[in-house]
Amino acid sequence: MFSTDTYKNRRAALKRNVGSGLMLFFGNEECGMSYEDNTYHFKQDSSFLYFFGLDYAGLAAIIDVDEDREIIFGNELTIDDIVWMGTQPTLHEKAHRVGISEVRPTSELKTYLDAAASKGQEIHYLPVYRAEHRLKLQNLLGIHPGAEQPSVPFIKGIVNLRNYKTAEEIAELEKACDVTADMHIEAIRTARVGMHEYEVAAALEAVAQANGCRISFPTITTVNGQTLHNHYHGNLINEGDMVLIDAGAETEMGYCGDMSSTVCAGKTFTTRQKEVYDIQVASHLAAVNALKPGIPFKDVYELSCRVICEGMKSLGLMKGDPAEAVAAGAHAMFFPCGLGHMMGMDVHDMENLGEVWVGYDGQPKSTQFGRKSLRLARPLEPGFVLTIEPGIYFIPELIDLWKSENRFTDFICYDKLEPYRDFTGLRNEEDYLITETGARRLGKKIPLTTEEVEALR
Amino acid sequence: MFSTDTYKNRRAALKRNVGSGLMLFFGNEECGMSYEDNTYHFKQDSSFLYFFGLDYAGLAAIIDVDEDREIIFGNELTIDDIVWMGTQPTLHEKAHRVGISEVRPTSELKTYLDAAASKGQEIHYLPVYRAEHRLKLQNLLGIHPGAEQPSVPFIKGIVNLRNYKTAEEIAELEKACDVTADMHIEAIRTARVGMHEYEVAAALEAVAQANGCRISFPTITTVNGQTLHNHYHGNLINEGDMVLIDAGAETEMGYCGDMSSTVCAGKTFTTRQKEVYDIQVASHLAAVNALKPGIPFKDVYELSCRVICEGMKSLGLMKGDPAEAVAAGAHAMFFPCGLGHMMGMDVHDMENLGEVWVGYDGQPKSTQFGRKSLRLARPLEPGFVLTIEPGIYFIPELIDLWKSENRFTDFICYDKLEPYRDFTGLRNEEDYLITETGARRLGKKIPLTTEEVEALR
Repeated sequence: MFSTDTYKNRRAALKRNVGSGLMLFFGNEECGMSYEDNTYHFKQDSSFLYFFGLDYAGLAAIIDVDEDREIIFGNELTIDDIVWMGTQPTLHEKAHRVGISEVRPTSELKTYLDAAASKGQEIHYLPVYRAEHRLKLQNLLGIHPGAEQPSVPFIKGIVNLRNYKTAEEIAELEKACDVTADMHIEAIRTARVGMHEYEVAAALEAVAQANGCRISFPTITTVNGQTLHNHYHGNLINEGDMVLIDAGAETEMGYCGDMSSTVCAGKTFTTRQKEVYDIQVASHLAAVNALKPGIPFKDVYELSCRVICEGMKSLGLMKGDPAEAVAAGAHAMFFPCGLGHMMGMDVHDMENLGEVWVGYDGQPKSTQFGRKSLRLARPLEPGFVLTIEPGIYFIPELIDLWKSENRFTDFICYDKLEPYRDFTGLRNEEDYLITETGARRLGKKIPLTTEEVEALR
Repeated sequence: MFSTDTYKNRRAALKRNVGSGLMLFFGNEECGMSYEDNTYHFKQDSSFLYFFGLDYAGLAAIIDVDEDREIIFGNELTIDDIVWMGTQPTLHEKAHRVGISEVRPTSELKTYLDAAASKGQEIHYLPVYRAEHRLKLQNLLGIHPGAEQPSVPFIKGIVNLRNYKTAEEIAELEKACDVTADMHIEAIRTARVGMHEYEVAAALEAVAQANGCRISFPTITTVNGQTLHNHYHGNLINEGDMVLIDAGAETEMGYCGDMSSTVCAGKTFTTRQKEVYDIQVASHLAAVNALKPGIPFKDVYELSCRVICEGMKSLGLMKGDPAEAVAAGAHAMFFPCGLGHMMGMDVHDMENLGEVWVGYDGQPKSTQFGRKSLRLARPLEPGFVLTIEPGIYFIPELIDLWKSENRFTDFICYDKLEPYRDFTGLRNEEDYLITETGARRLGKKIPLTTEEVEALR
């Protein structure tokens, strides 16, 4: 937990940002897997954690700007709770540590909100991402599930704080990234022909846990790197395969790391793998070198796409002008996702608040396939923390679909592409802080090039 | 996945058990951690998995007994789904593998239920354990959240099948228990003075994952074994500590193991630890030796409690007649939980359907502190799979509370108890199948006695 002042200052800044009304925060509840008491690892709502610091289930909070009050709602433990789950500080004690003196039982939340509504106060609430939030809004404010209208001033007020990481947050992120790097180095050393993907996942997740961290998102450890979010770990690793690993650690305080690496199953990559890998590295380095305050991340994305198209052209898989290919969206055959995203207390930071506010500052997003998956486009500013993760993917279903539709035949050489159907995909990912003058990598270095990977094998 | 016939036969038997009406099954949804797309590992509803075998999010199913129809409701994948999550068989193909030919889009579920209701058909549904289920029942059947009335014939119809494990299920459970045993053996070998609890947890969870399993419930690895469900792993292990480990594996098919062991931090236990440990082992063995068809598990629990009271009396911590102490509930000072529970596709099998049906066959439960936590009481039958897990705990908060209330002063020697305040707690747990003639342990043997633990150190 940070100092009491950190949480007080954050709430004071938010009050200034939002200006008036009453802000309603829901902490998260435990979520049962296949029955109520067999719960997933508790994950607190990250905005709740950012402003109130309390990593416990079953809480809610109000910042009443009009009345200048801050209240935490929750229930104290019973003797049964203590026998089963151990003793804890009282809720009053917990609240005191984050600078809040007013604590009330959960049952009084509705009373408070009803009184506010009857006074005509505006009640701000955030977008929902769990069914439990919909039920609470229905119960407390009479909002029909699915008809929620989250408060834009509330969202913007939070985004305008959380997007700018402070020194103490950067130290936590650096910790997460160091452990994340160790997870990748362990995986790169471990992966072998004849192993199952889940054995590699076991090795890298154990590194996170042995450092007192959790994983920050479901681990990807796959010989089918062409599937972007592939959580299946049941395949055998065969000679000639590449294993794509995308994994990260989350510190006890909730700050996340997120890196990717792509490893050869044997001692070395094949020539064909190296050729494609080198293009991806060139794209990666071009993006990293472009990072500085003021540059729109959209431009960094376009640059990384252009480098990929140039490379694909050199392999004979594309033709025509790379910049035109990117503008048309043809690059998305090989790179159908974004270049990176904000990172912080969520691995896709504040994704629940809406990418359009976090990554686009309210500007509209493209609807073009590929480009629409870019989560971050706005001009970069000091304090932003983001990932850089270009990749090159050969997706048989996408090749077949576009070929059947004659899409981008001016740019894509479908006949040359055919032998690459089984190439799978590759990606390398690092995390960067935007500084006053440029950017700084967070966490230890992990292998980026084929040579650096092979050196660890 | 089992054979098509397994699922067809299970559904046919359930239809016979329930007799009439329409059974509505909800598969589970993905659950976002701190935003929608960063999901926990998907866990299917275990009754859905038992009858329909499909381990995918977003499905529902109907068994319409009156019309003799079985339908799976869900949506086919889009090209975006395939790019991000990989290709899969179609829903029709998946359904075919479990013997179901009728598949409809999710949007038609409400239509079907409306038609059934207008025909006056009884619609059976199960107890809810996730907020998403409440929202669905509200949306589909107009049931106000919190006012659900699950169908007792449906619950009993399922319990009367799932309580009796078949040979193919026992093989899966044996697999889960073998991996669970390996997790414990690894932890017993790993735990050392100077380690953090989370390092031991990392080592044992890696064993589950490296065997293609998940953990079946949140791992307990704690120097504070007196807290029954202690999920905090941040303590250092010090000389003289005991580390209580309660952990299990879940196979890819969803079958669970659940074992506990208690390890000395150093090479050997102290004399005081051995004295208490031996009492717990005596209680454990008495319970195991009593297992056979026909004996009410309540009686096995009473027996294990009596052995603990006898032992506590031999240490001077209790007095009076052990059987009377147990009848009065005084044993719950040291053993405030149950002796064991059913185990299967849930680690507490079917806990979501209600212990009173699973473990009590509809008979009422005690409300006495300690005894009320017994999850299983009914006479044992061949095919039941259950855990045996007596423990001895010294809970300072409970000692203080009961002492201040002068509770059970005829049985508890509070003055002698005082020096044990810092003893913490210990437990050993194994899993058993009730056979025609007695019981059989599932999975490899893990150390049960102090001598067996010390031999691995």
